[in-house]
Amino acid sequence: MSHWETYLNENQDRFVTELIDFVRIPSISSLPEHASDVQQAGEWVAARLETAGLENIEIMPTAGHPVVYADWLHAPGKPTVLIYGHFDVQPVDPLHLWARDPFDPVVENGRITARGASDDKGNMFVPIVAMEALLRSRGSLPVNIKCLFEGQEEIGSPHLPPFIVANKDKFSCDYIVSSDGSQWSESQPCIWLSTKGLSALQIDVKGARGDLHSGVYGGAVANPLHALAYILSSMRSADGKILVEGFFADVVPLSDDDRTKIAEIPYDEAQFMADLQVSALYGEPGYTTYERSWARPTLEINGVWGGFQGDGVKTVLPNEAHAKITCRLVANQGPDKIADLIRAHVEKVVPPGVTVTVTQLASKADPYLMASDHPANQAAHEVLEELYGCSPFYVRTGGSVPIYRLLLDNLGVYPLTFAFGLEDENLHAPNEFYRLSSFRRGQHGYCMLLERLGQG
Amino acid sequence: MSHWETYLNENQDRFVTELIDFVRIPSISSLPEHASDVQQAGEWVAARLETAGLENIEIMPTAGHPVVYADWLHAPGKPTVLIYGHFDVQPVDPLHLWARDPFDPVVENGRITARGASDDKGNMFVPIVAMEALLRSRGSLPVNIKCLFEGQEEIGSPHLPPFIVANKDKFSCDYIVSSDGSQWSESQPCIWLSTKGLSALQIDVKGARGDLHSGVYGGAVANPLHALAYILSSMRSADGKILVEGFFADVVPLSDDDRTKIAEIPYDEAQFMADLQVSALYGEPGYTTYERSWARPTLEINGVWGGFQGDGVKTVLPNEAHAKITCRLVANQGPDKIADLIRAHVEKVVPPGVTVTVTQLASKADPYLMASDHPANQAAHEVLEELYGCSPFYVRTGGSVPIYRLLLDNLGVYPLTFAFGLEDENLHAPNEFYRLSSFRRGQHGYCMLLERLGQG
Repeated sequence: MSHWETYLNENQDRFVTELIDFVRIPSISSLPEHASDVQQAGEWVAARLETAGLENIEIMPTAGHPVVYADWLHAPGKPTVLIYGHFDVQPVDPLHLWARDPFDPVVENGRITARGASDDKGNMFVPIVAMEALLRSRGSLPVNIKCLFEGQEEIGSPHLPPFIVANKDKFSCDYIVSSDGSQWSESQPCIWLSTKGLSALQIDVKGARGDLHSGVYGGAVANPLHALAYILSSMRSADGKILVEGFFADVVPLSDDDRTKIAEIPYDEAQFMADLQVSALYGEPGYTTYERSWARPTLEINGVWGGFQGDGVKTVLPNEAHAKITCRLVANQGPDKIADLIRAHVEKVVPPGVTVTVTQLASKADPYLMASDHPANQAAHEVLEELYGCSPFYVRTGGSVPIYRLLLDNLGVYPLTFAFGLEDENLHAPNEFYRLSSFRRGQHGYCMLLERLGQG
Repeated sequence: MSHWETYLNENQDRFVTELIDFVRIPSISSLPEHASDVQQAGEWVAARLETAGLENIEIMPTAGHPVVYADWLHAPGKPTVLIYGHFDVQPVDPLHLWARDPFDPVVENGRITARGASDDKGNMFVPIVAMEALLRSRGSLPVNIKCLFEGQEEIGSPHLPPFIVANKDKFSCDYIVSSDGSQWSESQPCIWLSTKGLSALQIDVKGARGDLHSGVYGGAVANPLHALAYILSSMRSADGKILVEGFFADVVPLSDDDRTKIAEIPYDEAQFMADLQVSALYGEPGYTTYERSWARPTLEINGVWGGFQGDGVKTVLPNEAHAKITCRLVANQGPDKIADLIRAHVEKVVPPGVTVTVTQLASKADPYLMASDHPANQAAHEVLEELYGCSPFYVRTGGSVPIYRLLLDNLGVYPLTFAFGLEDENLHAPNEFYRLSSFRRGQHGYCMLLERLGQG
């Protein structure tokens, strides 16, 4: 048994008690009345980093909630690893669905139940504990370390871009490891290769000067709802292929190796359909469900409205129709270019008699893709294999995580996700919990990963 | 000068005073608190018919507002003419847009301004006055007369169908003349040949068990909004032709003579487009604007909704989408058959992964079409030509008037519209008015028409 393992074992009860203290702080970043709680959580993190043995600790202001910085830079010739995580949490509504106070946690059946227990306080506390164990057991860390713990992830990190740009040198590093993520299951590790980008648009179709009588004008004046239906249906073929010209031009295609790795992941289509209560699946021809949702760009209508929505009948020919669309993008698509292509498509297909406006909405994100053989992934692969006794799956997510591209574009380093949450832990939902088995396994994982990265 | 003309001239001031009394009664049929006013208006009509010299007057109950019956059946060998009109009125909202109390009328500049002044109290009072003039001046009427004045037209005459069915014999007749309608302009008469039918449907598309995360499931699960757009756009070609199989099967085609009659009616396309503020017109290829809105069936989406309709972005893959559709029908289409055809079309085109329900809504009407050379139209043509000094236009309406088919189907007689309102008189809107010139001209018109019909 190595020294850090002994240290972890001997101090585990204290770590759990500390995690309970940490999740007691209601650091809800989206609610202004909790701003001081977010600040307090940052101060807790700063103090805990000091206890762990980190140095040069700073609570750095941003235009919003603060960032906590720390470092330990006494491993000359070794790489510098930037550890990322966040100490803010989601709101707790609906409160009545919680079995107990979301900020008054208990440990039961090997789980700690509280808002933020998994996302991300439990997961971000893991590398802090691991660094403490390494420092206390061997007197040094195997790599140089910088920490970037933020307090605004749950609101989309709005003030982080200028902060990172302004502090590029301070955060310069060789590796980035994010503690915000999950494994595939209790027995199956995984490595996250990509997140999708996002491009959001609104389409507004305008017809005549006002709503018209469908008897007097029907059939003789363009109906914006028909025009909108025509525009929207022109964007995807009946069998689900996106038809916007140029949409796929910048897509990095899936390699045979990529597809093989995805195909190795168990997928029970009957169960998937039963869970969703659908009688058939639907998507781009030639791709599997995982490929469609993880690795192919999508175009989905999020909402449509126009005309009469009440009970019964209103014989109106409406003069307005509206739709909201979001596209999920894959490398190397860009949200602004996609918005331009969709605008051009709409202008090409709009029928006569209406005017149409396509507006790009503020939400956007660039896609992120990390090579499966990136050295950080190779290191993670070895560690996870040893830890779980099986090879990790190489997975992707259809969701968007802007922080990855923010860090890559400014620091020139591909972030690795290395975290031990599980997707059943009610993230963003009532009764969020975290497994203490994951907490312990993560501590071992981080000690092993940092040692592995220190070997170059 | 014939006797009735003298009588009309000598009594015109009294008639205007009586009309003012009539429109003072706030007989709003849609508002339960005005039910007694509708009843009172019926009593006013009954009393006024007695003054005019009609006989066997009855205020007949229905399951809703009453019907007023009267007759004069002392012209053996002459045809029996049923006069139709209604004494209920529309609500007055928004009240603040009225220049004065809608039920406290004044006569100014040759107009009487009040709710119901044109629709239909002024117009339905015209034949009563005309019959009085004929009876007082010549001691008899040139035809047998039955009257059917109702109090629920503005709410769609919901209780009239069983009432007519139960009283077929009482209302048996050779001609039906409706006082509810209009002329083309102050100088141009017209004859209404048709009204459209109505078939109303709702389409509900259901996807997965609930709304889904557009990142996690987008591209891999059917989106009901895309399915709805696809269904709706499949119903009409890009250039406006209805594509539902069988939709046109029962349509009575426009004859060359029909089209010639429509083409003779002045139409200023630039002005039409400017009034509507549209840059182009749009409709079934091969037909003019009047043909499209008057004589061709239409399919219009009245409303569409589903998913997120708020500000900004919500990255949701919704699980419901809805649309309301109304079709305006022409002879000999039927609303139930059209609903069945649309249901069959939707079931044929619905993409996989969603379920769709097509529900026919309660509002429906059969189309009405009267031959332009029907004897009643020939009589009206002669009278209008003499009254205006020019030939009437043969026009149609895209609106639906269920009473026509109700009377035709049960009494076997084609109703003629013979009324002297004008379309600029703010029907169903604030500051409704009626021209006293139309009131007087109508009285002459009805005396002439009844005499003409009495000649066989």
